[in-house]
Amino acid sequence: MSLPAYESLTLKATRVELKDGVVVVTLTRSKERNTFTKDLVNEIVLLFDLFDKDDRVRVVVLTAEPNAPAYCAGADISGGWDGLWNPESEKEGEHAHRDSGGVVTLAIFRCRKITIAAVNGHAASPDCNSHLTSDLPWSGAKFALPFVREGIAPEAVSSYLLPKLLGTSRALSLFLSGATITVDSPLLQGLYHTLLPTKEEVFPAAYAFAQELAQNTSQTAIAVTKALVWHAADTIEEQHILDSRAIRSLGAAADGAEGTRAFKEKRAIKFPDTLSKNLPSWVPWWHELDIKHRKAKL
Amino acid sequence: MSLPAYESLTLKATRVELKDGVVVVTLTRSKERNTFTKDLVNEIVLLFDLFDKDDRVRVVVLTAEPNAPAYCAGADISGGWDGLWNPESEKEGEHAHRDSGGVVTLAIFRCRKITIAAVNGHAASPDCNSHLTSDLPWSGAKFALPFVREGIAPEAVSSYLLPKLLGTSRALSLFLSGATITVDSPLLQGLYHTLLPTKEEVFPAAYAFAQELAQNTSQTAIAVTKALVWHAADTIEEQHILDSRAIRSLGAAADGAEGTRAFKEKRAIKFPDTLSKNLPSWVPWWHELDIKHRKAKL
Amino acid sequence: MSLPAYESLTLKATRVELKDGVVVVTLTRSKERNTFTKDLVNEIVLLFDLFDKDDRVRVVVLTAEPNAPAYCAGADISGGWDGLWNPESEKEGEHAHRDSGGVVTLAIFRCRKITIAAVNGHAASPDCNSHLTSDLPWSGAKFALPFVREGIAPEAVSSYLLPKLLGTSRALSLFLSGATITVDSPLLQGLYHTLLPTKEEVFPAAYAFAQELAQNTSQTAIAVTKALVWHAADTIEEQHILDSRAIRSLGAAADGAEGTRAFKEKRAIKFPDTLSKNLPSWVPWWHELDIKHRKAKL
Repeated sequence: MSLPAYESLTLKATRVELKDGVVVVTLTRSKERNTFTKDLVNEIVLLFDLFDKDDRVRVVVLTAEPNAPAYCAGADISGGWDGLWNPESEKEGEHAHRDSGGVVTLAIFRCRKITIAAVNGHAASPDCNSHLTSDLPWSGAKFALPFVREGIAPEAVSSYLLPKLLGTSRALSLFLSGATITVDSPLLQGLYHTLLPTKEEVFPAAYAFAQELAQNTSQTAIAVTKALVWHAADTIEEQHILDSRAIRSLGAAADGAEGTRAFKEKRAIKFPDTLSKNLPSWVPWWHELDIKHRKAKL
Repeated sequence: MSLPAYESLTLKATRVELKDGVVVVTLTRSKERNTFTKDLVNEIVLLFDLFDKDDRVRVVVLTAEPNAPAYCAGADISGGWDGLWNPESEKEGEHAHRDSGGVVTLAIFRCRKITIAAVNGHAASPDCNSHLTSDLPWSGAKFALPFVREGIAPEAVSSYLLPKLLGTSRALSLFLSGATITVDSPLLQGLYHTLLPTKEEVFPAAYAFAQELAQNTSQTAIAVTKALVWHAADTIEEQHILDSRAIRSLGAAADGAEGTRAFKEKRAIKFPDTLSKNLPSWVPWWHELDIKHRKAKL
Repeated sequence: MSLPAYESLTLKATRVELKDGVVVVTLTRSKERNTFTKDLVNEIVLLFDLFDKDDRVRVVVLTAEPNAPAYCAGADISGGWDGLWNPESEKEGEHAHRDSGGVVTLAIFRCRKITIAAVNGHAASPDCNSHLTSDLPWSGAKFALPFVREGIAPEAVSSYLLPKLLGTSRALSLFLSGATITVDSPLLQGLYHTLLPTKEEVFPAAYAFAQELAQNTSQTAIAVTKALVWHAADTIEEQHILDSRAIRSLGAAADGAEGTRAFKEKRAIKFPDTLSKNLPSWVPWWHELDIKHRKAKL
C-alpha cells in the first residue's frame, strides 16, 4: 500500500508535522474549544490509521494550540444529543449507532505506536486524552466525567478503559459522582506519566520525551509490548508461552541484536526493524471485532 | 409490584429514613457493635432489594449511630464459626453454605442506585463497607482483614472485589498479612472517595454529598454506568458497541433531553426518568447466576 | 513423596536456611551481580517446588548477600540474546522457547506459601522481585524495565502481572518508556508492602515480618486466599459460591477452630493444619496448563 508523501499536513481541524520519528498532531479548532465535530473525528481516525502504517512514525504527540481556551471540550451538545446521531445509522435503529468518542479512542488504541497526549488545557471529556499510553498534562487542567449529570452513559469506551487503567474503585468514584476535578487529584494519581506545573511547560516536555523515545525504542518491541498488555492471555501460563515466543522472535531479529550490541559498545542505539517488514508473522494472535455495523457479529 | 408505603421504618437491627431521594440506613445494634447477626443480614438484603425497586430512592447512605463503638464489627465469632452455619444448608453439605457477608455484598451490588457508606467508626471486616460505590470514612477508622489469622478465607466476596477495586498488589498485601490498618493507610489509597478527619464529620459530609447527587444525577444513567463498569464486555470493541447503544438510548430519552436543556438554560436540573419505567429494554445484557442453592448451576 | 531432610542447603547459586517456619533463600552469586544463570533458574524452580510441598515452610524470604552490588541484575546478555536460547528447544522452533524469567516467576506463583522479597539492592529486571506476595525493598533500589530499549518483549510474565498488580495505566507508562526508576517512584506506589530507607534495614525487617506471619497465619487459609485472588471466578456470584465453600470448609477444620478459640482465650495461636493433610479436597478448582513444550496444548 502506498502512503501519501507528507512531512506536514494542514487539515480542517488538525495540523500535522513529522520530524525524526515524532509526529505532532495539533488540534486547531481553538475557537470552538476543539469540540468533537465530525471533521475532528474523521481526521483523528484517518491520521492514526496512517501513523500505524507509516514506518517513519515512532511516537505521536497530540496537543492543542498554546493559546487554546481548552485542550478538548468534548462533544458539542449545544443542539442536544440529537445532533450527534448519524442519519444513516438512524435508519437502521439505535443498535447501529457508534459513539464518535469511542471511534476516536479505538483508532488511537489500534495504532501500534506510542501516543503521548500533551494536555495543555482543560479536557471536558476523556475523548481526547485517552490515556492509552503516556500522557503529560498540565496539573491544573480540569478533567470532567459529567455523564450521569447529563443523563447519559460514559463516552469513548471510558467505562472499559478507566477501571483497567486506574482500578474499579476510583473509576466508579469518578463516574458515579460525575466529577469535574483537576488532574492532580488523588483520584487520578497514576493515570498520567508526569504532571507539569504550567500549561506552557506541557508541550516542550512532551516533545522532548517523544524525541527521546523515538530515538531509543524499538518499533517492533513497542508494538508487541502494547499487544501483550492489552491482549493478554486468560491465564499466566498461556501468557508465559506467548511472551516467551515474543522474546525469542524479537531477540533473534535485527532490533534485538542492535539492543545488546549498542549496550556492549556503549554507543547510541539505532533500531533498524519496522512494523511493515519485521513484525513476527504470528502477530496479531487475537481476533479483532469489526465495529462497523453489519460487520459486527454480536 | 406494590411497595410498602414508607417514609421511615424501624426494624430490629436498622432504622430507615427516606427524604428527597436520599434514604439513610442506620445500623442500630450499637451495643453489639453491629455484628453481623441474622437480623442485620436479612434486613440489609430486604432493604437494598426494596431500594432497587423504589423509584423514589436515588442514593442510599449506610451508617452507624453517632456514638456506636464500631461501625460494624463483622461476624460474631464468640461461639466459634459453627454458629454461622445454617441448619438447612448443613443438611445438604458444605457446598450449600452461603457466606452471609457475601449475601449482603451481593444485595448492595445488585441495587442499581448509588450507595455511600458513611463509615463513622471502626470496621472489623469489609462486610459492611463494601466499597461498591463511593464511601466516605473517618480517616482514623480501623479496617481489618484478619482472615488468614483466623484460619479462614476472605469473607464477603472481598477476594473478588478488592483486587479489582485496588489492584491485586495491595489486595494481596492486605489479605496475606491479615492486616489491621487505619483507612488513611497508603495500602488503601484510592479506595474511598473522601476521608474525613473526625468521626463527627463523616455523616454530615456523606449526607450532603448524597443530597447533591440525588438532585443532579439521572437514575437511568447511574444504573447503566454501574452496569457498564461491573458487566463490561470482554473486548474494547464489544464495549464500544454496548456503550454506543447506551448513549443512543439514554440520549434520546427524557433524562438526556433534560441534561442538555438544563445546561443550555443554565438552570437546575430535574431528571424525570425512573428505573421502573425508562430503563432501555435491552438492559440487563448479562446473565445473572442465582446464588440460591439448587438454583445455582455450577 | 519423601522430601530431602534439610535445615540448610548450599547450592551453586543459592544458600537456604529453614527455621521456625521461615525459609531464607540467599542469592550467592554476588560477584556476577546475581544474573539469571541456568544454575540460578534451576535452583529457584527446584526450591520453590520443594517449599510448596514441605509443610514445615510457612514463609519464604528471598534476598541477596548484604554486600552484593545488586539484588539481581537480570539476564546476562553480554553474549547477546542468543546465549539465552536452549539448544533443545531450538531444534523444535521458536514456539518451543520458554523464557527463563517466566519459568522462575511461575515457580514462585505456583508455591502456595507467602513469599517476601527482601530487595536489598538494585534489580535490573522484575524477574527476581516478582511482587507475587509481599515485598520489602530498599527505597533507593533501582528498578528497570528496559525491554523496549533493548528491542525485546517484557520478560517474566510481567506483561500479565504488572497490569493486574498496579493497574494498566502505570504498567504501560513503565513498559513503553523502558523506565529505570527507584522503587519510591509514584509509578510504583502500592507495589510493595513497605519501603525501607536503607539497604541494611531491608533483611532484618523482612525477616521479622516473616517470623510474625509464620507464627500467626494458617497454611491452608493462606493457600486458599492466594488461590481465590489469582484464580477468581468470572462473576461475583460464582466467587460467592466459591468463597462460601472455602469459609465453610476451613471454618470447620482444626485451623478455623484454633482461630476462634485462641481469640476467645486471648492466647498465642498455634495453627495445626498443613497443606499436605488438610487442604479441602475440591482445591484446586481451576485447571493449570502444563508449560512444558509438547504438553502445552495451545
